[in-house]
Amino acid sequence: MSSPPFCGIASFGRQEIRLTPIEGQSADVAVLGCPFDGSVSYRSGTRFGPRGVREQSLMLWGYHNALQVAPFDVLKVVDAGDVDVIPVDIAKTHSLIEAAASAWVEAGTTVLGLGGEHSVALPLLKAAAKKHGPLAVVHFDAHGDTWTEEYPGYPLSHGTPFIRAIEAGAIDTECYFQLGIRGPTYAASDYLDARALGAKIISADDVGERGVKSIVEEIRRQVGTKPLYISFDVDALDPAFAPGTGTPEIGGLTSREAVGLLRGLAGLNVVGADVVEVSPPYDPAAITSVLGANLAFEMLALMALSPSRKPPAGRA
Amino acid sequence: MSSPPFCGIASFGRQEIRLTPIEGQSADVAVLGCPFDGSVSYRSGTRFGPRGVREQSLMLWGYHNALQVAPFDVLKVVDAGDVDVIPVDIAKTHSLIEAAASAWVEAGTTVLGLGGEHSVALPLLKAAAKKHGPLAVVHFDAHGDTWTEEYPGYPLSHGTPFIRAIEAGAIDTECYFQLGIRGPTYAASDYLDARALGAKIISADDVGERGVKSIVEEIRRQVGTKPLYISFDVDALDPAFAPGTGTPEIGGLTSREAVGLLRGLAGLNVVGADVVEVSPPYDPAAITSVLGANLAFEMLALMALSPSRKPPAGRA
Amino acid sequence: MSSPPFCGIASFGRQEIRLTPIEGQSADVAVLGCPFDGSVSYRSGTRFGPRGVREQSLMLWGYHNALQVAPFDVLKVVDAGDVDVIPVDIAKTHSLIEAAASAWVEAGTTVLGLGGEHSVALPLLKAAAKKHGPLAVVHFDAHGDTWTEEYPGYPLSHGTPFIRAIEAGAIDTECYFQLGIRGPTYAASDYLDARALGAKIISADDVGERGVKSIVEEIRRQVGTKPLYISFDVDALDPAFAPGTGTPEIGGLTSREAVGLLRGLAGLNVVGADVVEVSPPYDPAAITSVLGANLAFEMLALMALSPSRKPPAGRA
Amino acid sequence: MSSPPFCGIASFGRQEIRLTPIEGQSADVAVLGCPFDGSVSYRSGTRFGPRGVREQSLMLWGYHNALQVAPFDVLKVVDAGDVDVIPVDIAKTHSLIEAAASAWVEAGTTVLGLGGEHSVALPLLKAAAKKHGPLAVVHFDAHGDTWTEEYPGYPLSHGTPFIRAIEAGAIDTECYFQLGIRGPTYAASDYLDARALGAKIISADDVGERGVKSIVEEIRRQVGTKPLYISFDVDALDPAFAPGTGTPEIGGLTSREAVGLLRGLAGLNVVGADVVEVSPPYDPAAITSVLGANLAFEMLALMALSPSRKPPAGRA
Amino acid sequence: MSSPPFCGIASFGRQEIRLTPIEGQSADVAVLGCPFDGSVSYRSGTRFGPRGVREQSLMLWGYHNALQVAPFDVLKVVDAGDVDVIPVDIAKTHSLIEAAASAWVEAGTTVLGLGGEHSVALPLLKAAAKKHGPLAVVHFDAHGDTWTEEYPGYPLSHGTPFIRAIEAGAIDTECYFQLGIRGPTYAASDYLDARALGAKIISADDVGERGVKSIVEEIRRQVGTKPLYISFDVDALDPAFAPGTGTPEIGGLTSREAVGLLRGLAGLNVVGADVVEVSPPYDPAAITSVLGANLAFEMLALMALSPSRKPPAGRA
Amino acid sequence: MSSPPFCGIASFGRQEIRLTPIEGQSADVAVLGCPFDGSVSYRSGTRFGPRGVREQSLMLWGYHNALQVAPFDVLKVVDAGDVDVIPVDIAKTHSLIEAAASAWVEAGTTVLGLGGEHSVALPLLKAAAKKHGPLAVVHFDAHGDTWTEEYPGYPLSHGTPFIRAIEAGAIDTECYFQLGIRGPTYAASDYLDARALGAKIISADDVGERGVKSIVEEIRRQVGTKPLYISFDVDALDPAFAPGTGTPEIGGLTSREAVGLLRGLAGLNVVGADVVEVSPPYDPAAITSVLGANLAFEMLALMALSPSRKPPAGRA
Repeated sequence: MSSPPFCGIASFGRQEIRLTPIEGQSADVAVLGCPFDGSVSYRSGTRFGPRGVREQSLMLWGYHNALQVAPFDVLKVVDAGDVDVIPVDIAKTHSLIEAAASAWVEAGTTVLGLGGEHSVALPLLKAAAKKHGPLAVVHFDAHGDTWTEEYPGYPLSHGTPFIRAIEAGAIDTECYFQLGIRGPTYAASDYLDARALGAKIISADDVGERGVKSIVEEIRRQVGTKPLYISFDVDALDPAFAPGTGTPEIGGLTSREAVGLLRGLAGLNVVGADVVEVSPPYDPAAITSVLGANLAFEMLALMALSPSRKPPAGRA
Repeated sequence: MSSPPFCGIASFGRQEIRLTPIEGQSADVAVLGCPFDGSVSYRSGTRFGPRGVREQSLMLWGYHNALQVAPFDVLKVVDAGDVDVIPVDIAKTHSLIEAAASAWVEAGTTVLGLGGEHSVALPLLKAAAKKHGPLAVVHFDAHGDTWTEEYPGYPLSHGTPFIRAIEAGAIDTECYFQLGIRGPTYAASDYLDARALGAKIISADDVGERGVKSIVEEIRRQVGTKPLYISFDVDALDPAFAPGTGTPEIGGLTSREAVGLLRGLAGLNVVGADVVEVSPPYDPAAITSVLGANLAFEMLALMALSPSRKPPAGRA
Repeated sequence: MSSPPFCGIASFGRQEIRLTPIEGQSADVAVLGCPFDGSVSYRSGTRFGPRGVREQSLMLWGYHNALQVAPFDVLKVVDAGDVDVIPVDIAKTHSLIEAAASAWVEAGTTVLGLGGEHSVALPLLKAAAKKHGPLAVVHFDAHGDTWTEEYPGYPLSHGTPFIRAIEAGAIDTECYFQLGIRGPTYAASDYLDARALGAKIISADDVGERGVKSIVEEIRRQVGTKPLYISFDVDALDPAFAPGTGTPEIGGLTSREAVGLLRGLAGLNVVGADVVEVSPPYDPAAITSVLGANLAFEMLALMALSPSRKPPAGRA
Repeated sequence: MSSPPFCGIASFGRQEIRLTPIEGQSADVAVLGCPFDGSVSYRSGTRFGPRGVREQSLMLWGYHNALQVAPFDVLKVVDAGDVDVIPVDIAKTHSLIEAAASAWVEAGTTVLGLGGEHSVALPLLKAAAKKHGPLAVVHFDAHGDTWTEEYPGYPLSHGTPFIRAIEAGAIDTECYFQLGIRGPTYAASDYLDARALGAKIISADDVGERGVKSIVEEIRRQVGTKPLYISFDVDALDPAFAPGTGTPEIGGLTSREAVGLLRGLAGLNVVGADVVEVSPPYDPAAITSVLGANLAFEMLALMALSPSRKPPAGRA
Repeated sequence: MSSPPFCGIASFGRQEIRLTPIEGQSADVAVLGCPFDGSVSYRSGTRFGPRGVREQSLMLWGYHNALQVAPFDVLKVVDAGDVDVIPVDIAKTHSLIEAAASAWVEAGTTVLGLGGEHSVALPLLKAAAKKHGPLAVVHFDAHGDTWTEEYPGYPLSHGTPFIRAIEAGAIDTECYFQLGIRGPTYAASDYLDARALGAKIISADDVGERGVKSIVEEIRRQVGTKPLYISFDVDALDPAFAPGTGTPEIGGLTSREAVGLLRGLAGLNVVGADVVEVSPPYDPAAITSVLGANLAFEMLALMALSPSRKPPAGRA
Repeated sequence: MSSPPFCGIASFGRQEIRLTPIEGQSADVAVLGCPFDGSVSYRSGTRFGPRGVREQSLMLWGYHNALQVAPFDVLKVVDAGDVDVIPVDIAKTHSLIEAAASAWVEAGTTVLGLGGEHSVALPLLKAAAKKHGPLAVVHFDAHGDTWTEEYPGYPLSHGTPFIRAIEAGAIDTECYFQLGIRGPTYAASDYLDARALGAKIISADDVGERGVKSIVEEIRRQVGTKPLYISFDVDALDPAFAPGTGTPEIGGLTSREAVGLLRGLAGLNVVGADVVEVSPPYDPAAITSVLGANLAFEMLALMALSPSRKPPAGRA
């Protein structure tokens, strides 16, 4: 990364562009853009999320001081480009994402998805679960995204990925955390329903009151050595920290809390992750893209520190 | 319209909000929002177009000096609100728009649609044609929107409404003008195919070279007394005049040319119209919404001057 | 609220538009826009505040999880539109606001005002006090707004509403809290004068140091069962959380603190409220309007939980 | 002007800051900011116009190639700062502006006003007419600003300065041109009333159809050697060229037309001028402030070429 | 180009990324980013120009209808990425650009440079002239950029590339056109000096008065079969069309004029070109980047139609 | 400061503009703009920082309530304008800044620098150290800025001022604090190298964990009566609070923490200070300029309370 960040074509973290797995050339992590925003209920624009995050990722100088790891050295990370989504067909788009992700997963590569809207977490979860079985999930969000349906009659949308993933057996409901939840809901049943599905709801207020450390301990205890998927909707953060998103809710996490919660997961067995709902059209100073790039970097650090990742000789 | 434009809840031109036709209370024109942007191939955001246009419409003081008509006096105009679109289902959304528009048309009310993306012109054209038969169409656009398919396998999208409308028999292909066309296309066949369908292509350069008057005369000669539908994609104008749109193309019409072309249609039999592709997220000074509101006002003036509109006694 | 928030004409929370009280049709709360910004000393633009807040209010799904109440179910809320202000005459504008608010108050309806600049709190306070007598006031703000005069010789301006309200007997000075105060002032006398008037100043630093809970307890103790008016200038929050305002001051409240303070007032007897100083021209990602809409929702929840509000049978 | 334009405190064109006339130190032109926007009927923000124009004026390198004159060499230009306006009192503000302008006029200095809203033209016109008698006026605008009243009962507002100036005898109604007029008006009477007052209305369409040269000749013929005041509301230009203004109207002048019209006035006896309605909050790329600065520079060039200006020895 | 333009990592026109010439794999055109803005005298930000242009280039569908050519089919175009500039050393940066460009030129590839500021034209001109000898130059700009020095004592800056190129023998001064010139200059000598150097100045006003056709004929006559370099500073256009640039000047070209002038050069022997001074931070709706991408596309079309380009068999 | 903040030419805090020291007219503090951004590695634009900060400084009403001091009364503060920087020559620019600062320092005036990029701290530190000897330094930043070189072969850049200042003997390395440090670095060595140079690194997380009070005590203990320089890069704050900067890093300080840390230094012997890296092009709501103005005001308050400042009789 010797070029200044304003120079050059922006692949994630200036890593090699490799659009599909290449036989005989292993990769540890594939950063996969999923620029679909066709089902959002309010402000659109997350189709430009992967591009925005890639651009800001050029400021990720490489070494993670808090976790003392250099993810791009420890891991062979490739930028797998974007899935060619079809704006008018969410089901087909999900198939395309699942196929692309599965190809990487089957090749032994962990997928780090960049949204796009949160619905893309569904095919990403399914691709990871196909290999690893039901996944422990730490899900950052203002909204549970576990509605039965957002548009009556349509099972797929950005408000439903987690209920669909549960139904598909992709989530280990004994170990499903929702972090940062807050704001108005349709009814009291929203939370009750999510809890009935197994979700442990930790609200943004809980984070403030209990503190990062206590929550991290609870999660670690629960997750143990299970395969873990981390799904991060940037609206888990307060709009002050993440204005560029579709359905901002006040009273959210600070970036320090968010980063603290993520770092607390170091050493767990991260087998998949995503950063979603970054919407550049609503991000005039690009701080939400900066946030998204850094959250992705945090996840790479977690992957680098995952017990299942044995850094190949000659790296790190 | 005695309130300052920054005051009050914004219905179009401060006209009565009437969400559906009311038996026994005739209306001449219904302004109908169609906030769907689910199929756009590039920048989204036109779902906020109707709201943006409504807000700026509060500056439409009422009297049209060039055409010497006060549309809101001559016509009973109602704001019919927005169709409740379903972002994930373009076909169903089109049905909902067609149903809403047809209800007005059947009640004897002309529909002025506000997009949303250009695909919404398809159900609007169909609703108007159901009553008036195949329509003469004056279609302002940078792009022909007459592709066979934009996403392979999907007949409906914002690049295909006019081919679909022709197939549906809604357009009188003897009398179909495309104005403002320009920019790169996939291939030479784009224009050839459009012409084969019957479209008379008048490029933005043609407007500059031939002048507004000559073009207007050609159109008037051709249209005569036929029922006329005017579809206006704001990207017919240069991005300088309409930055807030999804697929801006340089070299476009000026606002004076656009307005001149529209006013040249005065006295023709306008039975339907739309203003589409206004995208507020890309319109920081709101000038594209201002443009959209004024284009809608020009169309109301044309409707007021249509031979089929006999202003009811006691108005004008 | 089944339409997506980008659809339809925006009344507050999609509630009925009712511009004046209707005999025989009771309403519990009237949301009343007061789009006046004629006296601000720095950045203008709050005239677009009510429209901005209304638009974002469409994301208020309805159920308040922290307070466990559904304000739109418990209360009959109407959107009373905007007072037609006169930019060149603050005194006349105040009369118009007071008249509009009084009509609602007299009809037994609590008024929730949306600014506009903070001066509009004066007629709103007076209207509420006319019915309820001198009011306990919880006033969120960076600035005390208790200057004798902001422009020499002019008693009315956005820096003076609370001194004028005190002079008018509308505030119970035994029970007047200013929360979030900070930043440079003209002189040391600013705070001294405010205190001499009876204001209990709780600075933003105090909130950080003492914590929300302690402050809430102090307020509750003091207010007891008195009729309470809550006036919320969004610049009480840090500019990070509320960039779209006229006189931002660093070091402000976070949104979590603000919401915590408001929720701490649940069960008090709220007889009037306002949310003011939202300025959309300085709010490119609309997060200040989102904040304003949510603060209004918090206040509706407090009104729903007020002892004086007996939810009519058949609701809740 | 050897500093780069981004360096230094911005006085107009880096000219001397002289807040009031100084006995014994003559000045040819005083640039006087009038940052009042208290009566605007729509978007506010022109209070920041003088500051925006000053900042962009630092790019005015000095020599006017088309008119072959270096205004800052030929004329002693001073930046007279801003009048301290009172947002809540338009009448008092007008008095303050008139007093400030009169002081300069009496000292033999021509005033070039920077708005602020268009109402500030009234005191500027009056100050100039006090010395020169009724003035020939070339008034660029989308709107006539000759309404009897904009807010019923209030004679002063940004929609009425020219009728008030006519009533005050400040305008020679034999020689009053309105250029760039267009857009909807309240009624047909708007133009008729303006014409009855003596205004020669030349619409934006007229400019396009007749051409700059023909119009300039008509004006020159009419004005002859009369003292001329030029009032320039930037909304005379199309919103594409002047997005940063309060009441944009489509179909306006291009910047080339505007500049051509102004240059056509070279050699006339310009005794006063203003550039108004630049609104920086709606001008994200600052092009409207750039326009305002250049229009002011054009006017300085006209002043430098005025027959009454005998450049003092040692300059030019 | 079957992906939607919002999908995927943005290389110019989705062409192959090839950072340096590859022996044995010929390329006709290399698009080379030169993201240097270190010498600009006013607004910076053109360092993001290449990235902005690349992103918008994904809307260039491929076929040029006016010139009837498909540049990406006729030519093998590669995206050569960006030169790694050194912000603090313009001379070294120029060497790096010249080296990168020369490598391509020597490999038989025409370079199409993307700025960055206009100073980058100097090394690009030198690289082309090294092969082709002194070049005919058509230079679009508001400013001549032929100052002796912009910062006293520093020969290199964005105001001096053309005088330096003339001194270096890279320009055939018998055939050097400046198009779009206008605005204030330091002195009358600016134009005189440029003319003395051989520049034929055709102002923006000249374009309006003489018309595109007459100017094109003059240029074609003069250029004949000489090797031609086209340098396009987007501030040749009016700020309405190109707000996102560093030193906007009013009264500029329209996009239709600009495109007309470029197309008029079809068939000439284009051996090098650049598009410079696109500044994304001042381009909120990205219309200047859209413009830049289209100007680059026009230049590719001219290259495709150059007599020296014999399209290889199997293409076109 | 009786004018509203939108009125008048903006000198810092409306203080006297005095571009160089005047013999016989003492000044306590000179606010000196250093609008250089020529070496930044990412987003540029801080050249407009001094102007942005000056504009927002007009809201600094004068009295500092927390520290109970009125800096503009206690101190004679002058606005020394901007150094005329040379964008292409960082070394020469640094000389010019050092010369300008030294002239003030020699005249007994403390310099408060406004950046510009952080490299301008180097000449400012050197100017202060020339008089006071090696300085204790409290350096707020996300990045240590103690790299050996940012661009290989170039000692000067915005990533190296503090290593250069240490080498120049301007910093007392026994007493050098870095506050707010965080984010990715090139390698683990970044922090180790900084520590080896003597820097005490207190990360943003440390601030959160230890609390403001504990850190302030540590610094005060260490600094004692030494001459203290405070250098404040606004990216020490989280991008939520300071979006308008060049290299934003998530997880930063809040404004309340930043202000708390500064106020904790009251009574120390502040002999120089700067506020740098405010970048208005990335600051759409101007909140970063507001922050910068307030940080500068905090520093003035510290200067007013410095033991070495004996307020002259007749002030305070």
